[in-house]
Amino acid sequence: MAHKNQSPRAPIARPRSGNESSKQNRRDFLARSAGIVGATVTGLAAKAAQGQEAAPPAVPPWMQTMGAPMRGYGQPSKFEEKVLRTLTPGYGTLAPGTGTSRTPVHLLEGTITPGGLHFERHHNGVPNIDPAQHRLMIHGLVRKPLIFTMEALARYPMISRICFIECAGNSGANTLPKPPQSSAAVIHGLVSCSEWTGVPLALLLNEAGVDVEPGADWLLAEGADAAAMSRSVPLAKAFDDALIAIYQNGERLRPEQGYPIRLLLPGWEGNMNVKWLRRISLTRGPTHTKDETSKYSDLMPDGKARQFTFEMGVKSVITRPSGGMTMQGPGLYEFSGLAWSGAGRIAGVQISTDGGASWKDAMLQAPVLPKSVTRFRLPWEWDGSPALVQSRAADDKGNVQEARASWTPQYSPGHRYHNTMIQTWQIGADGSITNDYL
Amino acid sequence: MAHKNQSPRAPIARPRSGNESSKQNRRDFLARSAGIVGATVTGLAAKAAQGQEAAPPAVPPWMQTMGAPMRGYGQPSKFEEKVLRTLTPGYGTLAPGTGTSRTPVHLLEGTITPGGLHFERHHNGVPNIDPAQHRLMIHGLVRKPLIFTMEALARYPMISRICFIECAGNSGANTLPKPPQSSAAVIHGLVSCSEWTGVPLALLLNEAGVDVEPGADWLLAEGADAAAMSRSVPLAKAFDDALIAIYQNGERLRPEQGYPIRLLLPGWEGNMNVKWLRRISLTRGPTHTKDETSKYSDLMPDGKARQFTFEMGVKSVITRPSGGMTMQGPGLYEFSGLAWSGAGRIAGVQISTDGGASWKDAMLQAPVLPKSVTRFRLPWEWDGSPALVQSRAADDKGNVQEARASWTPQYSPGHRYHNTMIQTWQIGADGSITNDYL
Repeated sequence: MAHKNQSPRAPIARPRSGNESSKQNRRDFLARSAGIVGATVTGLAAKAAQGQEAAPPAVPPWMQTMGAPMRGYGQPSKFEEKVLRTLTPGYGTLAPGTGTSRTPVHLLEGTITPGGLHFERHHNGVPNIDPAQHRLMIHGLVRKPLIFTMEALARYPMISRICFIECAGNSGANTLPKPPQSSAAVIHGLVSCSEWTGVPLALLLNEAGVDVEPGADWLLAEGADAAAMSRSVPLAKAFDDALIAIYQNGERLRPEQGYPIRLLLPGWEGNMNVKWLRRISLTRGPTHTKDETSKYSDLMPDGKARQFTFEMGVKSVITRPSGGMTMQGPGLYEFSGLAWSGAGRIAGVQISTDGGASWKDAMLQAPVLPKSVTRFRLPWEWDGSPALVQSRAADDKGNVQEARASWTPQYSPGHRYHNTMIQTWQIGADGSITNDYL
Repeated sequence: MAHKNQSPRAPIARPRSGNESSKQNRRDFLARSAGIVGATVTGLAAKAAQGQEAAPPAVPPWMQTMGAPMRGYGQPSKFEEKVLRTLTPGYGTLAPGTGTSRTPVHLLEGTITPGGLHFERHHNGVPNIDPAQHRLMIHGLVRKPLIFTMEALARYPMISRICFIECAGNSGANTLPKPPQSSAAVIHGLVSCSEWTGVPLALLLNEAGVDVEPGADWLLAEGADAAAMSRSVPLAKAFDDALIAIYQNGERLRPEQGYPIRLLLPGWEGNMNVKWLRRISLTRGPTHTKDETSKYSDLMPDGKARQFTFEMGVKSVITRPSGGMTMQGPGLYEFSGLAWSGAGRIAGVQISTDGGASWKDAMLQAPVLPKSVTRFRLPWEWDGSPALVQSRAADDKGNVQEARASWTPQYSPGHRYHNTMIQTWQIGADGSITNDYL
């Protein structure tokens, strides 16, 4: 348990009396609820009604008629229909099949991203793949090329792990000259976290006989989308912790996450976790595909591009309260956010409310898993004055999240990948929350 | 990592040649795939084509046209449309609002149950609750009765935990005189596992001042469904690890899981985790509601009923292979299953293929969390002869899953709740898998 039994002293007020549906219902309810008259309504929604007489809630209409039947596959409440991924299709003038959709991180809690809200990044749309027709081929510098049906693959030993996938372009908007006034989702929503289950790639490579071919030191992974998205991966990663992922949060992968199979490279940039995986070719050296030269390479101050920056850096963001939300007056709040590192486990997260002048340790939600997001939280008594709120994370490999001033000069202006810099949320005296550069 | 680099020696055969879409496509592909001619197709689906010439898969149609656009909220592939909860509405002659839907545990992997497939048990349908109208009231033997709006509740400090919920009636079908020939889902699918996030109930009880009322030692929890489902809970559990759950697998609770809030009592029988929670009344002693007298009580051999058997026992089930599936010939398989205990962590799972005469330790997937399901796995080389496959789990409190012979005499015939007995899957020489009583 991360919390002691703290009494959070949320604003307390008297209730509105507008929710009773009928006198009879109210009498029925009161008969069951001796002692409730005079109850205190706790919380923000009651603020407008301070000083009115307390009364218990009426018996609501949904207790007076039978509810909906069961369903084979459930969906969120219609009252949550605005909790959606933010679609940003076809960046600028690019083709319609490209784009991203972003996880609404500011509206979620915990660490698991539900399948329906996992971020997307597509280069030519989402293929509709028949798993009976799909094959995984392992070829190139191997002793014995192999082709797997999905049924065959499902016979192999599997493992499960919870880990994040983050697009290399996540948080790129914060490299713009002026701070974008967007939600945490739009700025930082290209990271999601799932429980993935699949077959260790090492098993399949051993069967194909890579070990007797000393010439192979990389592999090429290619997807079965219409972009044939492909990336080069050092062989050491494949034998370390790479998975051929078949299940996501218990069920088969979602189409937009690579159904029926994807490559999972825990902690490495999202684009390398090749979706709709169709072939792995063992190679001598990297292949230098279009997806790792014109894209997913890092522009340096001298105008050259750095390739193959795989591991995602240590990073954190406060998701609640965050940009675009409004503080509901002074009082007790809880900071809640996500921290992650492609290098290992989160070792600590600190929070500042004065723009980095002082820091407090946040609580980390157990279990803290390697290459997974970790939820952090910290109570905060807001006194109503302006504040500059930041979080900074450290991992168990000694990496510490960078400040804007140290991150920026490492790259050329216009470079947007691998932005790990500290996010500043500016809270105004009016309760407004905006994005600020510090 | 639970697995060493084992080469699983799955059946190997030559491929069918029926999947090439055109000669041109095939030539294009071959040009990119030097070295692939003669590749070995691995796996069961190729068995029928043994001896044919190997050829690489053709470029599939979904690589030749742009895929589907992004969506605000994703759904499973249409090729998975049969992966659904099994609906068993209105048990026998009971009213239409009652019934269960069961998680397809035999088709899932890992430990997280996706929200759309979490089992359901309703007593009068699923209410469609407007969260702006919903209130949580804490009253009865408290110093200060409280009413919470959902906005107010969301201001309190939260914690997250992954834990299972299991219906007391799960596996009840295996108490019938003859073994039901159903899937693992139909027999054992009233258990699911999610990451839940919410407010510790202890925080709210402290604010209501329960500690100054020595008279209260239980509470009544009531749902806002049309059955007003209600259960009595010892106060010690409320101060131990009870949560007011608001989020499930990152998003707000699904309607059928209690939207907007439910009581979460980790490890205790599902029915007590009251959905659509509207009030908690602090009481002296239990309330003896309809839902804990005529139902959810255990029939003893002497004809009396035992009340308040809260903690779910230690239990396991092999989900793959399991009842109704067919073994695809001799060769290497992996047993995969779920184990859980309401008392704590799973300490070990053993698997027998000879009806309990000998046992092997299964591998437990890390992290092994308390009151959560744990995925266990074990490779198995099936020689094609009949087998009686069982799993038995032990927890870290010293509890061991019971055999049928020791579980059965503890209850009256006809009693179906809290069935923890070992499941036997009988594998025939023809590969058929049936439910057996041992």
